[in-house]
Amino acid sequence: MVLDRLQQLTHQVNGSSPPPHPFDPLSTAEIDTVVALVRNEHGKVNFNAVGLFEPRKAEMMAWLENPQTAPLPARAAEVVAIAPGGKVYDGLVDLDQKKVTQWQHTPGVQPIITMEDLQEVEHVVRQDPKVIEQCGIIGIPREDMHKVYCDPWTIGYDERFGTDIRLQQALMYYRPHVDDSQYTYPLDFCPIFNAETKQIIHIDVPPIRRPLSKAAPNNYLPAAIEKEGGFRQDLKPIHITQPEGVSFKMTGRVIEWQNWSIHVGFNYREGIVLNNITFNDRGDVRPVFYRLSLAEMVVPYGNPEHPHQRKHAFDLGEYGGGYMTNSLSLGCDCKGAIHYMDAAFVNRAGASTIVKNAICIHEEDAGILFKHTDFRDESMVVTRGRKLIISHIFTAANYEYCVYWIFHQDGTVQLDIKLTGILNTYAMNPGEDTHGWGTEVYPGVNAHNHQHLFCLRVDPNVDGPNNTVFQVDAVRGPGEVGSPESKYGNAFYAQKTKFSTPREAMSDYDGSTSRTWEMANTNKLNPYSKKPVCYKLVSREVPPLLPKEGGLVWKRAGFARHAVHVTKYSDDQIHPAGRHVPQTSGEPSQGLPAWIESAGPDSSIDNTDVVLWHTFGLTHFPSPEDYPIMPAEPMTLLLRPRNFFTRNPVLDVPPSFARSPSQVAAGKSSCSSCSGKGDGSSRLV
Amino acid sequence: MVLDRLQQLTHQVNGSSPPPHPFDPLSTAEIDTVVALVRNEHGKVNFNAVGLFEPRKAEMMAWLENPQTAPLPARAAEVVAIAPGGKVYDGLVDLDQKKVTQWQHTPGVQPIITMEDLQEVEHVVRQDPKVIEQCGIIGIPREDMHKVYCDPWTIGYDERFGTDIRLQQALMYYRPHVDDSQYTYPLDFCPIFNAETKQIIHIDVPPIRRPLSKAAPNNYLPAAIEKEGGFRQDLKPIHITQPEGVSFKMTGRVIEWQNWSIHVGFNYREGIVLNNITFNDRGDVRPVFYRLSLAEMVVPYGNPEHPHQRKHAFDLGEYGGGYMTNSLSLGCDCKGAIHYMDAAFVNRAGASTIVKNAICIHEEDAGILFKHTDFRDESMVVTRGRKLIISHIFTAANYEYCVYWIFHQDGTVQLDIKLTGILNTYAMNPGEDTHGWGTEVYPGVNAHNHQHLFCLRVDPNVDGPNNTVFQVDAVRGPGEVGSPESKYGNAFYAQKTKFSTPREAMSDYDGSTSRTWEMANTNKLNPYSKKPVCYKLVSREVPPLLPKEGGLVWKRAGFARHAVHVTKYSDDQIHPAGRHVPQTSGEPSQGLPAWIESAGPDSSIDNTDVVLWHTFGLTHFPSPEDYPIMPAEPMTLLLRPRNFFTRNPVLDVPPSFARSPSQVAAGKSSCSSCSGKGDGSSRLV
Repeated sequence: MVLDRLQQLTHQVNGSSPPPHPFDPLSTAEIDTVVALVRNEHGKVNFNAVGLFEPRKAEMMAWLENPQTAPLPARAAEVVAIAPGGKVYDGLVDLDQKKVTQWQHTPGVQPIITMEDLQEVEHVVRQDPKVIEQCGIIGIPREDMHKVYCDPWTIGYDERFGTDIRLQQALMYYRPHVDDSQYTYPLDFCPIFNAETKQIIHIDVPPIRRPLSKAAPNNYLPAAIEKEGGFRQDLKPIHITQPEGVSFKMTGRVIEWQNWSIHVGFNYREGIVLNNITFNDRGDVRPVFYRLSLAEMVVPYGNPEHPHQRKHAFDLGEYGGGYMTNSLSLGCDCKGAIHYMDAAFVNRAGASTIVKNAICIHEEDAGILFKHTDFRDESMVVTRGRKLIISHIFTAANYEYCVYWIFHQDGTVQLDIKLTGILNTYAMNPGEDTHGWGTEVYPGVNAHNHQHLFCLRVDPNVDGPNNTVFQVDAVRGPGEVGSPESKYGNAFYAQKTKFSTPREAMSDYDGSTSRTWEMANTNKLNPYSKKPVCYKLVSREVPPLLPKEGGLVWKRAGFARHAVHVTKYSDDQIHPAGRHVPQTSGEPSQGLPAWIESAGPDSSIDNTDVVLWHTFGLTHFPSPEDYPIMPAEPMTLLLRPRNFFTRNPVLDVPPSFARSPSQVAAGKSSCSSCSGKGDGSSRLV
Repeated sequence: MVLDRLQQLTHQVNGSSPPPHPFDPLSTAEIDTVVALVRNEHGKVNFNAVGLFEPRKAEMMAWLENPQTAPLPARAAEVVAIAPGGKVYDGLVDLDQKKVTQWQHTPGVQPIITMEDLQEVEHVVRQDPKVIEQCGIIGIPREDMHKVYCDPWTIGYDERFGTDIRLQQALMYYRPHVDDSQYTYPLDFCPIFNAETKQIIHIDVPPIRRPLSKAAPNNYLPAAIEKEGGFRQDLKPIHITQPEGVSFKMTGRVIEWQNWSIHVGFNYREGIVLNNITFNDRGDVRPVFYRLSLAEMVVPYGNPEHPHQRKHAFDLGEYGGGYMTNSLSLGCDCKGAIHYMDAAFVNRAGASTIVKNAICIHEEDAGILFKHTDFRDESMVVTRGRKLIISHIFTAANYEYCVYWIFHQDGTVQLDIKLTGILNTYAMNPGEDTHGWGTEVYPGVNAHNHQHLFCLRVDPNVDGPNNTVFQVDAVRGPGEVGSPESKYGNAFYAQKTKFSTPREAMSDYDGSTSRTWEMANTNKLNPYSKKPVCYKLVSREVPPLLPKEGGLVWKRAGFARHAVHVTKYSDDQIHPAGRHVPQTSGEPSQGLPAWIESAGPDSSIDNTDVVLWHTFGLTHFPSPEDYPIMPAEPMTLLLRPRNFFTRNPVLDVPPSFARSPSQVAAGKSSCSSCSGKGDGSSRLV
């Protein structure tokens, strides 16, 4: 109905090209319009970001409910610009009225470090006399400075330099040959780059020097592998084909597949954003999530020696998961029939740019969906599942993050993340003690301990916006063994704790109770179980934030202090470490802690529009097999419908094979309903 | 070399058919020989099990190390038989010498309940006057007794009846029509069946009666789905093909694939057994595991009301995961190019039987194996992974367990289990309170809370048999924030605790430290990291045993008291709940607790031949979407090489796409080494 209405509106307005869906990212044309309007009013500024200013939820919900009569939410853009002198401006542009509606100087913040910002550091570093001097000290002659490289990182926060000067720290490396992996040759000092003046303003030099490693290169690109004996020859091809095409339908950016409907958005910061996720339950289109995204992450490193404490990248808030996204390619990143979507951004000069194939949408076989055999007569059913995967991959300097939003036919949403790429490395001398803060993964290469902590933002809409979050623990029943209530000691049950306030909702993972969290609609009970309909968060890779309470990372990454936070919905609360993350001191902590403080930690989150923030991830103690490039390490979590449906919602998926007891008795062994379905090769041998 | 030697021996012995590999399961011919030898000496007994008596490890290791000179281990069978009068005999048969070498009466035990044992109960139940009477009381007329069904279970342990009488409990159901799911109509009483006399010796009748449900059927077989509107029509086929065949090679039951070599065994109890798992590390064939199997499981139910405490099936020890295994079919259970293996058993009468396609071996695409893009110039590599999957599926009355042993190219072994099938159900009256011990998943259907706890037996052989197990916790470094040693509070490290004794090794999962366990060879350090080579157990679905300490399940399932136990290797310690599990009282506890007691809880397990026992699984609080048949619920764990290799062992897997910095600079954008590899469709769009 929403889509119909958009088409009608289009027709009324201009007869042809549809207006964007309110959740659609800005088009290049819209970005160009925004830039022109800002330029016109505010002159020559550098653009840091231009993106969709998401529709206010109240307007959007009204329109989603009544697309025929409710007004289409206004189309607007948010702008971050840096004026000469480094002044940061936050602006809003109304794209319907074609005017800048807000333009404010935001002092004391640093917006995202863009790819363009990163690109310019290496050139400056190579020219800097003090860097050249340091290189000389550790054994790199002046004429080899073109072999010196750096991965520029945000500085995190360094109290010596504060927030006002826009800075990057340059993690230094060397390449003997342009095709060698630089991570085998980390340098021991760290220049600080001033992005405004394009100068190196300081170099952190360690008390113990570590001369350039003389180890042989440790490479992964094909030429090196060919030299070492070449590639293995014993892998026969696996072809995955969909001759009849995909099973999903795209209308603009809304995908419909196997009862799911999802709007696929994308922004420079979070990458993929999924909106208005609904499930068609036998004709009843039931809302499930208003919005799902990876909203933030932090990667703290565990070496306490100065200046390694500065290595704790907020890859989304400091660089942008969208900005760093890869252009994907068929057969390399995904297999099968792929639908790609591009992503549009602005560059510093105000031109719109495109990353081709930023998002990959495809289906995969999901193995057995359900199966049962009756032991009496071998009557049986076996049905294969299918999954829909919406993915993107971004490269954060050395690491890559592969993000897979997976929709299952049974109503489950799965978020898979694969970590690959290259370890961040630091120099070490022969025989030097890592003190347990890292691992020597190759001679002279110290890969420091680190965590990857992701913050999943879930805006539930489980049969409506008024939801309540419960913590669920598997616990033993009361009574001692031998007592009347527990004679055999076998009682256990699901202990549910309602989160009435944000304070109560600050909760940690408990593996000993297999803790899960439910986003429930307490206004709607399952007719059979009499329990509230809900979606359950099942997440098992949930390490605590290891940097200590009160320390730098703890202050800056407030969202990571607990596995789960719950807040009352507010339109502008998207980024749990704050809107502008680089160079925040954490005093006071931005984002989640500030919002909770301001709303009141004891305010009600019961049966209202809530947002659940889930921090999960893993702790990585490197080892040599992770080097020189890491085999992908997987991580997963599930959002599962519980007491949401009245029965298994996939019973109508055509089985691969089935035979009923009466068919067995009658000597029939095939199933009419499954012939010609599936892959055509299904048979009992 | 082992395989060459077997072929040589074959040739010497008989010129043609090879002698079995010492790890091979018994052939039907061998089973027939065993039965004939036993019959000849001991007359007419009923056979409960005939299986491979596994070679003693010392002999086997000697032969594996020197197949040219060491003697081939003796070929022997273990036999369990039940003589008239219910006397249980444990025997051994030497297949080389063709003689029964051991035959002993084992009093006070009950061996596995076989499929044949299960099959005969329903018929008896339907005829029993007291059962007919009970059916009448809850509303089933005598003429409908053919609509009464039962799932016979082992009785667990019931102190009223003890161990001496061989019993089954009959969980009762009703089918209005032969093709209806009986689980919608559970009956409220429970007959006890004497397997020796074939009589119902007792009926447990609850204090509150629950008349037969009048709810409409809730079915999943095709005819019912067709009646409700039919199957969805919108799934387009996905074809997975391997036109050049598989990438693995089978020599007998030894599979070689991507540097792995694995002997694939199978027995009536554990199902798949993997032996002598090695990894060819650039020419060096390194042992990794001597033996891997799922050795036991227990499924305790959480309802303390009598007689539900008896529902705690040891599906492997009480029924046999091999005995209950499904015959698999192409395109239904697995897709692609499949290699199947059959399984041979004995039946009660002593005839050998075959389950066709008991084991499925196939490859799957595994998505991205590794990827990295250099942000400077978009030089990059992306390589896809492949996995090898060795699987079987078994049906334990209502549930199915799909077991997938997955081998990755990077040295990781993954165990995936999918749970599907049907919930065990019990009757409830309209409006009856479940007291939290279960969920009403459909009117009149109470599905009780339960756990699925599996015991993975790992016999590590990490660069040799002498291994040591460490517990590894991710913990914060010392010092308060602000102190010299922890100024910013960001220090963290891997705290390793050596298990020197079985007592120390009784360890639980700790989610708050992301606890893992390492099986290390402390005699061999990684040349770079200087840490012992090891395999790490990474397992996150590790609930504690919820039945209480001292209670019935706790006593019987000693293995489930801790996430990890470690014992010194002993040839006959395979089954952690004991050799004969049905009707054990747990006083004293069999299996692991007994072995640890007998070896001495403070004896050394440091740098010796050890076995690690890992209990993992999940706690299931049913909900209506699990009914009338459960969408598969997945579970996974990893065994990962750490400090085992000196570098990423998959660098020589042909990339899908790669371009080096110098290729980018020269304007070349393709990679010679990957053309024609992969699926042929790989390209940058």
